[in-house]
Amino acid sequence: MTLVGDLDTPVPLVEVGRLERNLSRMAERIAAAGAGHLPHTKTHKTREIAERQLAHGAAGLTVAKLGEAEAMVDAGFDDLLIAYPLVGEAKMRRLAALLERARVRFTVDSADGARAASGSLAASGQRCGVLIEVEAGSGRTGVSTLPEVVALAGLVASLPGLELDGVLTFGRGYVEGTAAQQRSGRAEGEIAVGAARAIEAAGLGPLPIVTSGSTPTSPYAAEVSGVTHVRAGNYVYHDLMQVSLGVATYDDCALTILATVVSHPSPRRYVVDAGIKTLAGENYGWGTYGRILGQPDVVISWAAEEHGVIDLADEVADPGWRIGDRVRIVPDHACGVSNMHDEVIAVDGEQVVDTWRVISRGRVR
Amino acid sequence: MTLVGDLDTPVPLVEVGRLERNLSRMAERIAAAGAGHLPHTKTHKTREIAERQLAHGAAGLTVAKLGEAEAMVDAGFDDLLIAYPLVGEAKMRRLAALLERARVRFTVDSADGARAASGSLAASGQRCGVLIEVEAGSGRTGVSTLPEVVALAGLVASLPGLELDGVLTFGRGYVEGTAAQQRSGRAEGEIAVGAARAIEAAGLGPLPIVTSGSTPTSPYAAEVSGVTHVRAGNYVYHDLMQVSLGVATYDDCALTILATVVSHPSPRRYVVDAGIKTLAGENYGWGTYGRILGQPDVVISWAAEEHGVIDLADEVADPGWRIGDRVRIVPDHACGVSNMHDEVIAVDGEQVVDTWRVISRGRVR
Repeated sequence: MTLVGDLDTPVPLVEVGRLERNLSRMAERIAAAGAGHLPHTKTHKTREIAERQLAHGAAGLTVAKLGEAEAMVDAGFDDLLIAYPLVGEAKMRRLAALLERARVRFTVDSADGARAASGSLAASGQRCGVLIEVEAGSGRTGVSTLPEVVALAGLVASLPGLELDGVLTFGRGYVEGTAAQQRSGRAEGEIAVGAARAIEAAGLGPLPIVTSGSTPTSPYAAEVSGVTHVRAGNYVYHDLMQVSLGVATYDDCALTILATVVSHPSPRRYVVDAGIKTLAGENYGWGTYGRILGQPDVVISWAAEEHGVIDLADEVADPGWRIGDRVRIVPDHACGVSNMHDEVIAVDGEQVVDTWRVISRGRVR
Repeated sequence: MTLVGDLDTPVPLVEVGRLERNLSRMAERIAAAGAGHLPHTKTHKTREIAERQLAHGAAGLTVAKLGEAEAMVDAGFDDLLIAYPLVGEAKMRRLAALLERARVRFTVDSADGARAASGSLAASGQRCGVLIEVEAGSGRTGVSTLPEVVALAGLVASLPGLELDGVLTFGRGYVEGTAAQQRSGRAEGEIAVGAARAIEAAGLGPLPIVTSGSTPTSPYAAEVSGVTHVRAGNYVYHDLMQVSLGVATYDDCALTILATVVSHPSPRRYVVDAGIKTLAGENYGWGTYGRILGQPDVVISWAAEEHGVIDLADEVADPGWRIGDRVRIVPDHACGVSNMHDEVIAVDGEQVVDTWRVISRGRVR
């Protein structure tokens, strides 16, 4: 039997007990609210956790890019929502091939995008379901006004090769505190439902999919009447962002990075062997790359590519580590961490129980 | 013949003409200063560019982690400096195996690290060269005072399994302007030489390797009498950091990311299909994830994992892109980008000339 102590570092660990509890809780909350779940698998990118999500009642899987969809179909899954506008001839050829093997949907937020996709898909004799993406605070993609939504839906419904399957929103979910998350979740759900009702009022319905919700907001978006599916993703692992927002506690964080103390060059500084290339560099403004599990005041205050630097804050007691000691780090953003590693190690306490391949790591195309 | 226009996006491109010019320039400057070069290969992580660096006179190769050294030895290289303190039994077993196949050196900055490495290596009947890392402004690893340097060098020289081969510094190279880079390069070089002379004065020399210098500072560190080797790495590609520091111009940036405009949801916003998982998330405070090649005022102002969001600044003219148009992005930090991709595409203008595998991508252990 392999123990955590036998592993070389740095290495990402997934606590299976915490994972299972996270899966249950979210599944129960969404089911209780009467919605379906299309969990976003970008967080873990593994076959094993996707299987567990389906076992917990998920209606299908969401992915971020076409390449992630291909990886998931290769792993045996057959119902994928690509929450991304697919653009370009190469993408459409790959999509047409994938449609031979699975049900796939993607999002559209422009007439040009819809027309180009239609032309390619129709030429290949395929038909693909699309969701109109509506802006609901994401600050990135999505149609902004109801007249535009209805016009784009009408165009999609009229085009060969495309099937108008519904509406998708991604809101400003990363807000602090339950009240704000509730407001945000309801808002993004209501925007999706409002768009869907307007499309249906134009005679273009009924729409089978009206989807909204991230990890902080899914329980609330799910309560909005008319929202058919939410798309929580990060909840399988949680991370410092979710802890900072009040969505999770440290005890819920299922993904940690086992690292080794490799340097103690001055009394108030330690360096661990996990830097940006292990912890991911996207500290979304939370001011840290990670915190030590069980000692959350001990912070990776700065990271170079391969160095995690812990400059102890004045009020923090010296953890007294020796060179070679090992620590577990709770990362700032779990989804980014998954994308840095080819494998994660499933553990039960100090016992290694499995190795899971991160099958869609790096599938950015 | 494959053209750039045939490639699916997002995809990293390396302009071979720019690469070759960058290689020549740095090699000439270092040689003119009378130093050797151990280029840091973490920037590109490819066999093909490492071979070009040796062809341009490099004396060996630097890597960031033991796993990168293994990948480089697998690719046929036989002289590696691991600029990292190697700690732990698993690492020492792997190092002992690697020493059967190549000359390898690593850095030490603690007595505990030196003793543990010595015990393991001696037990396996191996001997490995080590460099004492001395702090010179890196803010991470390295011994701080000369008495500590000499004491650690004495310990290393006395321990079985270790061979005292020299001194390494990594300074505060990321400073703006030639004058500051010159000061910083000289300072880190002089700290390395000062440490080496103190060690030698204690009867522990002569030391064959006294190394310092990053891309901004290597030309100046190389001029310091007694510095035997510098370790520039980023210079092969350059990036927005180097442009911001005045080290390179946009015309020197050999690594770009080809991306597609996938959304134009409002008059002043475009979204491209390259987000953090393509461009890397480590925008080291330069306030952007990338700029459009040829239109540097058009900035990836914000990035989600798979979305590069361009919110045009008020004074910037609308580039007038259509959905499906393609752009090339100069990234903030090229080394981070390499680590996101399994391959880079070598191009000569619009012509694809080769595909290079990023052999040490993700080798964080």
